[in-house]
Amino acid sequence: MSKKVGKQTVRFDNVGIIEGYALAGPKEREGNLGQQFDLCLDNDKFGEKSFEKAECKMFKTAIDGVLTKSGMTSSQIDTMLGGDLLNQIISVSFAMREYESSFLGLYNACGTFAESLFVGACLVDGNFKDNVVCVSGSHFSTAERQYRYPLELGVLRSPVSQWTATGVGASIMSNSKTDAVCRITHGTTGRVVDLGIKDINNMGAAMAPAACDTLTQFFEDTGSSPADYDKIFTGDLGKLGKQILLDLMKDNGYDMTQKLEDCGAMLFKDKQQTFQGGSGAACSAIVFNSYILNNFKNGNYKKILLAGTGALLSSLTSFQGESVPCIAHCLEVCK
Amino acid sequence: MSKKVGKQTVRFDNVGIIEGYALAGPKEREGNLGQQFDLCLDNDKFGEKSFEKAECKMFKTAIDGVLTKSGMTSSQIDTMLGGDLLNQIISVSFAMREYESSFLGLYNACGTFAESLFVGACLVDGNFKDNVVCVSGSHFSTAERQYRYPLELGVLRSPVSQWTATGVGASIMSNSKTDAVCRITHGTTGRVVDLGIKDINNMGAAMAPAACDTLTQFFEDTGSSPADYDKIFTGDLGKLGKQILLDLMKDNGYDMTQKLEDCGAMLFKDKQQTFQGGSGAACSAIVFNSYILNNFKNGNYKKILLAGTGALLSSLTSFQGESVPCIAHCLEVCK
Repeated sequence: MSKKVGKQTVRFDNVGIIEGYALAGPKEREGNLGQQFDLCLDNDKFGEKSFEKAECKMFKTAIDGVLTKSGMTSSQIDTMLGGDLLNQIISVSFAMREYESSFLGLYNACGTFAESLFVGACLVDGNFKDNVVCVSGSHFSTAERQYRYPLELGVLRSPVSQWTATGVGASIMSNSKTDAVCRITHGTTGRVVDLGIKDINNMGAAMAPAACDTLTQFFEDTGSSPADYDKIFTGDLGKLGKQILLDLMKDNGYDMTQKLEDCGAMLFKDKQQTFQGGSGAACSAIVFNSYILNNFKNGNYKKILLAGTGALLSSLTSFQGESVPCIAHCLEVCK
Repeated sequence: MSKKVGKQTVRFDNVGIIEGYALAGPKEREGNLGQQFDLCLDNDKFGEKSFEKAECKMFKTAIDGVLTKSGMTSSQIDTMLGGDLLNQIISVSFAMREYESSFLGLYNACGTFAESLFVGACLVDGNFKDNVVCVSGSHFSTAERQYRYPLELGVLRSPVSQWTATGVGASIMSNSKTDAVCRITHGTTGRVVDLGIKDINNMGAAMAPAACDTLTQFFEDTGSSPADYDKIFTGDLGKLGKQILLDLMKDNGYDMTQKLEDCGAMLFKDKQQTFQGGSGAACSAIVFNSYILNNFKNGNYKKILLAGTGALLSSLTSFQGESVPCIAHCLEVCK
């Protein structure tokens, strides 16, 4: 029987999030959600010789962490799915050397965590896999030197810019309904949307139309509205991008003013001078696996949406004068 | 009902490959399979200003080609899945701006086409999507300057090296059994295997153990043996890697001497001086969507295996002294 709902949405009947784990960096600890994370690093080199090796170790630590927290071993995990922002998603790929589980590498930039929840839910709900780990992360210092400038250069940042979050979030997803913290009940895969933004500092403006496209499609497909949800989380639009999304959704007839939270915008305090807030593949992954799951555990949430947003550029495409194609995948998460 | 078969394998009951399309470069046209491809480029710039823009155009051309060949429009495709070798998989991501379908970006290096067939088959067999496009490709000139040296430098190549194939292969996968060229009946997701090879020219030696791990697991999970198949294709081990795999499999009790073909090893003629043969995310994608599908259409094949192989390194990991983690995903394809 078809599990399609409308045009881009699918229904999941048997997908539970068993446990989550969020590892964050020192700057994230000083932010608004510092008390929510399972582990915060004192130093973002994490005892390694390079930031890249530190990022890889963060993936292993977060995966080991969620396994320990749930009382499972890696031999019980059929497949791990995920990605990161580094070229050839090396952080997660190299971490996978440590595990017996099979691996599916994913890349939709900062929307990768939402993508991993969607693909993972298809594997579990379709009875192809019993237990999977969905994982995604990023590291300020590896991203900054890959995408922008050497850290040592001390380049001034644009007021519309965001700060790549350092962290890794990992979830265990299972088809056994017992003891699930929450369930993934619907998922909408996003289309690539590019309205021609070329300012690589202003990712919020580039990504907001993609978030609008997917959220509007989700509401149309399911016949639901923002009022049906406790909260609607976007991944990393930042403060400006969040405002743009509110305006775009209002144009489409959906008022999300009382419901919308952006994982990036909520991550840091104003005095931390991240300007528009956090971004990166860690952003929605660490907020989902700490703050959001904690609110489900505490009974504060019954039903939320998570729309992970991603900007699909590389430094080469910007040098070649291209604009920024973006994407968003949306998940409905229920108690 | 569980669709798991053994440890890492799953069963698919309702997944057909409706049509395939293979676009290849000028050097590939001069190779052993030149007559098999749907379209061969005269010039690998493809009328574009840069090799990267040419690679992106190749993706659009292959996707448009398979849609036309099957008499479908992009509005009938629920989701497109795939990847390429460029940083942040820009070639496929930028091509996706042209289509209404939603997009899931994948990355398992040269194993990405096999990964897209696996994830696509889960989406279709699980009734989440009706029609998907699985697509993967690479371009010699973009890969060479990203992973190795500027082309203008004319660096001498190692005798164990392979030649990144220029091409894109696209398949339409559907849950309607009518008129399918062939069906995907089983899939095995691979684990990351790293035996410590650090010679970045010798990808065949690095990847052969991963192919061995996945193929051995497939035979154990399904209780089948090489004798049950018309042919067993690996993605891009090259001639040396193919020989290593034959030896490794013999150690595990499986004689594949009469069955094994490697898409990379078969692509070029000896006089073309590619040494060990072809490689790249195009390799298995263009051979599957031409030679293999043609043999199913002609009735020559009843049952084959395709094990897509990938080396999960980046140039940065090699500079930092890391070895090469590898992966292989295996699909059983039947008439």
